[in-house]
Amino acid sequence: MDFELNEDQRAFADIAAQFARDKLAPMAEEWDQKQIFPKEVIREAGELGFLSLYTPEEQGGLGLPRLDASIIFEQLAMGCTSTTAFMTIHNMVSWMVASFASETARQTYCEKLITGEWLGSYCLTEPNAGSDAAALVTSAQQVDDGYLINGSKVFISGAGETDVLVVMARTSDDGAKGISAFVVPATAQGISYGRKEPKMGWNSQPTRSINFDNVKIPKDHLLGEEGQGFVFAMKGLDGGRINIATCSIGTAQQALNQATQYLKERKQFGKPIAQFQALQFKLADMATELVAARHLVRLAASKLDSGDTEATAYCAMAKRFATDVGFKVCDQALQLYGGYGYIKEYPMERYFRDVRVHQILEGTNEIMRVIIARRLLAEGAQIF
Amino acid sequence: MDFELNEDQRAFADIAAQFARDKLAPMAEEWDQKQIFPKEVIREAGELGFLSLYTPEEQGGLGLPRLDASIIFEQLAMGCTSTTAFMTIHNMVSWMVASFASETARQTYCEKLITGEWLGSYCLTEPNAGSDAAALVTSAQQVDDGYLINGSKVFISGAGETDVLVVMARTSDDGAKGISAFVVPATAQGISYGRKEPKMGWNSQPTRSINFDNVKIPKDHLLGEEGQGFVFAMKGLDGGRINIATCSIGTAQQALNQATQYLKERKQFGKPIAQFQALQFKLADMATELVAARHLVRLAASKLDSGDTEATAYCAMAKRFATDVGFKVCDQALQLYGGYGYIKEYPMERYFRDVRVHQILEGTNEIMRVIIARRLLAEGAQIF
Amino acid sequence: MDFELNEDQRAFADIAAQFARDKLAPMAEEWDQKQIFPKEVIREAGELGFLSLYTPEEQGGLGLPRLDASIIFEQLAMGCTSTTAFMTIHNMVSWMVASFASETARQTYCEKLITGEWLGSYCLTEPNAGSDAAALVTSAQQVDDGYLINGSKVFISGAGETDVLVVMARTSDDGAKGISAFVVPATAQGISYGRKEPKMGWNSQPTRSINFDNVKIPKDHLLGEEGQGFVFAMKGLDGGRINIATCSIGTAQQALNQATQYLKERKQFGKPIAQFQALQFKLADMATELVAARHLVRLAASKLDSGDTEATAYCAMAKRFATDVGFKVCDQALQLYGGYGYIKEYPMERYFRDVRVHQILEGTNEIMRVIIARRLLAEGAQIF
Amino acid sequence: MDFELNEDQRAFADIAAQFARDKLAPMAEEWDQKQIFPKEVIREAGELGFLSLYTPEEQGGLGLPRLDASIIFEQLAMGCTSTTAFMTIHNMVSWMVASFASETARQTYCEKLITGEWLGSYCLTEPNAGSDAAALVTSAQQVDDGYLINGSKVFISGAGETDVLVVMARTSDDGAKGISAFVVPATAQGISYGRKEPKMGWNSQPTRSINFDNVKIPKDHLLGEEGQGFVFAMKGLDGGRINIATCSIGTAQQALNQATQYLKERKQFGKPIAQFQALQFKLADMATELVAARHLVRLAASKLDSGDTEATAYCAMAKRFATDVGFKVCDQALQLYGGYGYIKEYPMERYFRDVRVHQILEGTNEIMRVIIARRLLAEGAQIF
Repeated sequence: MDFELNEDQRAFADIAAQFARDKLAPMAEEWDQKQIFPKEVIREAGELGFLSLYTPEEQGGLGLPRLDASIIFEQLAMGCTSTTAFMTIHNMVSWMVASFASETARQTYCEKLITGEWLGSYCLTEPNAGSDAAALVTSAQQVDDGYLINGSKVFISGAGETDVLVVMARTSDDGAKGISAFVVPATAQGISYGRKEPKMGWNSQPTRSINFDNVKIPKDHLLGEEGQGFVFAMKGLDGGRINIATCSIGTAQQALNQATQYLKERKQFGKPIAQFQALQFKLADMATELVAARHLVRLAASKLDSGDTEATAYCAMAKRFATDVGFKVCDQALQLYGGYGYIKEYPMERYFRDVRVHQILEGTNEIMRVIIARRLLAEGAQIF
Repeated sequence: MDFELNEDQRAFADIAAQFARDKLAPMAEEWDQKQIFPKEVIREAGELGFLSLYTPEEQGGLGLPRLDASIIFEQLAMGCTSTTAFMTIHNMVSWMVASFASETARQTYCEKLITGEWLGSYCLTEPNAGSDAAALVTSAQQVDDGYLINGSKVFISGAGETDVLVVMARTSDDGAKGISAFVVPATAQGISYGRKEPKMGWNSQPTRSINFDNVKIPKDHLLGEEGQGFVFAMKGLDGGRINIATCSIGTAQQALNQATQYLKERKQFGKPIAQFQALQFKLADMATELVAARHLVRLAASKLDSGDTEATAYCAMAKRFATDVGFKVCDQALQLYGGYGYIKEYPMERYFRDVRVHQILEGTNEIMRVIIARRLLAEGAQIF
Repeated sequence: MDFELNEDQRAFADIAAQFARDKLAPMAEEWDQKQIFPKEVIREAGELGFLSLYTPEEQGGLGLPRLDASIIFEQLAMGCTSTTAFMTIHNMVSWMVASFASETARQTYCEKLITGEWLGSYCLTEPNAGSDAAALVTSAQQVDDGYLINGSKVFISGAGETDVLVVMARTSDDGAKGISAFVVPATAQGISYGRKEPKMGWNSQPTRSINFDNVKIPKDHLLGEEGQGFVFAMKGLDGGRINIATCSIGTAQQALNQATQYLKERKQFGKPIAQFQALQFKLADMATELVAARHLVRLAASKLDSGDTEATAYCAMAKRFATDVGFKVCDQALQLYGGYGYIKEYPMERYFRDVRVHQILEGTNEIMRVIIARRLLAEGAQIF
Repeated sequence: MDFELNEDQRAFADIAAQFARDKLAPMAEEWDQKQIFPKEVIREAGELGFLSLYTPEEQGGLGLPRLDASIIFEQLAMGCTSTTAFMTIHNMVSWMVASFASETARQTYCEKLITGEWLGSYCLTEPNAGSDAAALVTSAQQVDDGYLINGSKVFISGAGETDVLVVMARTSDDGAKGISAFVVPATAQGISYGRKEPKMGWNSQPTRSINFDNVKIPKDHLLGEEGQGFVFAMKGLDGGRINIATCSIGTAQQALNQATQYLKERKQFGKPIAQFQALQFKLADMATELVAARHLVRLAASKLDSGDTEATAYCAMAKRFATDVGFKVCDQALQLYGGYGYIKEYPMERYFRDVRVHQILEGTNEIMRVIIARRLLAEGAQIF
């Protein structure tokens, strides 16, 4: 048992921290307010390997464990929550294509996804299937020389400004086993995009719905085999939950750091407000829960890396706890700033808006509880 | 002991509810997104008496108790949180001028404030005196034929677009007793306004800082006597806390109503999500705490009306509890909407952003605890 | 709308407070530790009318509204939680017999229940029907000249040391409509009592199971008519929830009062610990939530008194909220005492143990949420 | 970074689990109810090395890291919270004597403490110095051939039934630097014990105050050097906090395991209550927070083992969080049992009573927050 980062992890974390400080943090406010999707900066992250952290090395990725990826994403999230969150989604796309695509498709997509020349969107959620994959209705009908995709996806990060889509669609009526995964060019004929959704936060990544109207793709754009889509999606979700939990941790740490500093500087009633015991206690609780949450995320990532049979439950726990704690810490940091926490001149209100969606995404925290409870009540559950 | 509204209260509530439904709710989204200060609609509220609810009848106001005002503001807040909150501030200005101004000043300002022809801003907070009135440094120096005001105010609601300012300024160094209140024309020479603060919410009312540079006002623009400003401010704050607590209650009730409806309509896993027990429990807790909060607010208003010696403590309790519960309810309502709660197509994220500031304004909820504890620890405290 | 006690309520409260101070508080520790059921003191309470607070005047009771009873019980609970809780149960028995018994049965039981010469137990819960009345299986079979009761009841307060039982038993298979209520002499042939249950708290009242083995009772011991038992039970539960919520409020107020005093006296780090801001904040929150809870209980009692169609939902809200807040306040008061809170020399740990069961009794707080949610989701619910 | 137990840790955990199951769990109820201090069973634990887990190997202890001790104590606490907690205190005494005693004293005490032939008590707390070591007034006056100890200690675990005392006493007025540590025979002349304190829980270990009236001890019974007592105490507290946190974790895990099983077996409304979603959610949250707490405790233990400069802050975090979570889990497990949770036939109420004191002991959780905040606000704090 060892809770310390190894040398490699430390080195990666340092590079990520520097990138966050230099490239993300200074721009995050502008990206948020002007709703800019910073594709160039994301590509620069690609040059450092941050767009293919756990993409297999054979395909050109860094092939890191999820634990290492979490350590890196945490640092990036300290610079910009929303942009880092998009990068984690792109990483999932990159990993899924590199791991499961046909040789042909790999050659077309892999390198460009890894470098960030092309950016990717992940298309799972549908209007009536938020957390209920079995209810997915987008269809992929096999035709002579490919598949015809029809249906709609909603809440797609990056949609309309990315180049590659990974799409879950139904190739048969057989429930979860009827779902297959495809890689699809974002500009394929028959694809149309909804309006850019005005959102409370996550403004540095566009969100749109996508409509597929007889979108034709070649056979070799199927990922894995027919019917494997749900399994890929579940694997993706475990990792996605680690990622989103990590984005909450990084943001909350940043909020805590700044609030701590602010308490030392801001004076009221003739002394720095850091001297007020009730605020000190608040700070102590923020830090305590944040440390607990960080290590729960790392535990879950480690379980995922080792193929633990309970990995899904641990990932759900980590996602639930870390996104709740992350929001709570940002909420309290905002409160510590008083009126200044509410105005856009300070970043507190952005952190607060950005992390709020993490309690909803990648399965709501209610769905996390369903997943956790199901395992706890199963015979032979091993969750400690 | 009687917990039911009387006939008059019911009638006022109905009128307010109708105004909220017809005039506020349909526009609230646009006002938020375009940051429009709806002066015309506020004036229409004035026609119904909603800009002078507790302004004395002799001066043309409705002369209602604070309890009745709370019942009315709650209904209005169901239509637009931010606009109603501004109206509560205007009511404070209107009440303060009507109650304490000289005959001359009354004749100049009262009627126009009551009708809403002129709108008012309340100028208490300074950059270094958020919750610490004794630290207030804006000065009002007596000169031959009036006062010269110098200093800065921050976070002033309506500033730059209102017509009348009530300004707290120091006429002597004698701590709280050195503070006096003035009514000041918003366009007086020497007044300049800061930029319109970009804020997370409360976007239908502009917020600006104000700079006073040798602003000359006539002697009869002093409210009450020199040195009474702090007492007026404290009276104003008690009522202001009831008001802001009320705005949280109304908004949260609106969020709860809509979320309840949404749960019945939204289907997942083949049935309305209202059938999921864990969501039902969440709903039950939201409603329970909201009912408790509402009646605590009314209790406090009633204590204020009857001149109870513990009124300040009750108002602080009501403000702390109702704004915390109000935020929590809006936060959970947002969560119940899932992804739809996070996008601006639905009002949940606006409720959430708007009520968040209520935990900060009119004395942060931390300051409320200071006030409450001080009374609890005093000899002979009577708080039940 | 009026939140003040009237003269009668004040007078009753004063008498109850004095009784609590003189007769209950000085003995409560001993009753707890030696598990003494203080029948004599309970009878003294009867002399003051406290055993028949809402029993109809025509039958010799005080005929007070539930609101007044709550005001009185709150004061009594400040003296001894567990004994007061038993008195509330006895009041329910007294009320039910006086309201629904046949003339003959009334003559036998009423006066003695009202004076406390006889004490009563209320027998609803069964081993497999904690919160599920429809699952009740104790039967009352009609025979020539009466009923034969068979079955088992558990967790019966007072059982084995009381004189009169009100028993819910099934007279037909028709679900809730098949349940009838009976008054039964506690020593009737065929009744046997289980061992006195060792409990965490509520030690001044014995708890036993009761077995009914062909217990024969006369026909005129039926309360109301056959099939009305469930309706009586539901009515009883609404009031019972107000009562138990009230016992939490009174106990918590007592704990808060003592903790406040303790903070002023106990010194650490050279000053009274009342001067530590974090403890002040804790105190403020305890008081705030307690005041909110008290008034929610009174609101619910008032709704019950006025026959409001939502009375059941309000009673469930009051029970859920007040028993949760009551426990939280006692838990925090214990914490404020530090090590002294944990030892039996101080009453904090007794308050803590006693109020804990209120979150379970009279329908667990989970069942309360079921009840509340059901109404919230019903068409036309009117809960504010 | 590695979150898995190594082979040794697993082996130790297994032995401890078996001991807990065979020797502690079957007796815990009786020990609690009859207030029995199970010295024989504690000695059996000594045979397995459990009384000298981190006592240096050179002195005959196991010399394990704190992390390993935590893993072992957690398993023991699953059998009996209170007895395990006493064993952790004995371990501290054993470690302190073995590490800091003079050669002579070591030869007298070490082996017997390690085997458990003699049991030890740790005497730090005084009536007016709960959390404020500098206020300690028990004195140790140097005389010709030894020290004379005078003063009083309170809340001493095991006192009156143990054989060896480690006593903190003041050898000079120099604040914390004036405190020294001594090993003292429990039957030395001049020592008298107070009455056995009736407590809410922790009943398998007696608690008494101790009075020292001119208690003479030899010079070589000083631990380390004069003035080092505070440093030893602080070191002891860091470890003691890990230990007490661990006792909460083990107990809560036991409560969770049993509640999970209970939910599957208990039926209401015609089905196992495990099928009610709201209870599932509760279970999920209990498990999630418990896993987070366990790993925070292990992180802190690991920091202590590696001599991390922030170890004290991490230990305080672990103690605060794990004892709060531990209590919350036991509280909710009790609630899941309904009425059965409140009676002594089931162990839930014992778990609940036993873990409650962990939020108070070894520095209250309020003091933990003081410690954490102090570090967070220090320059260069490194807490992640």
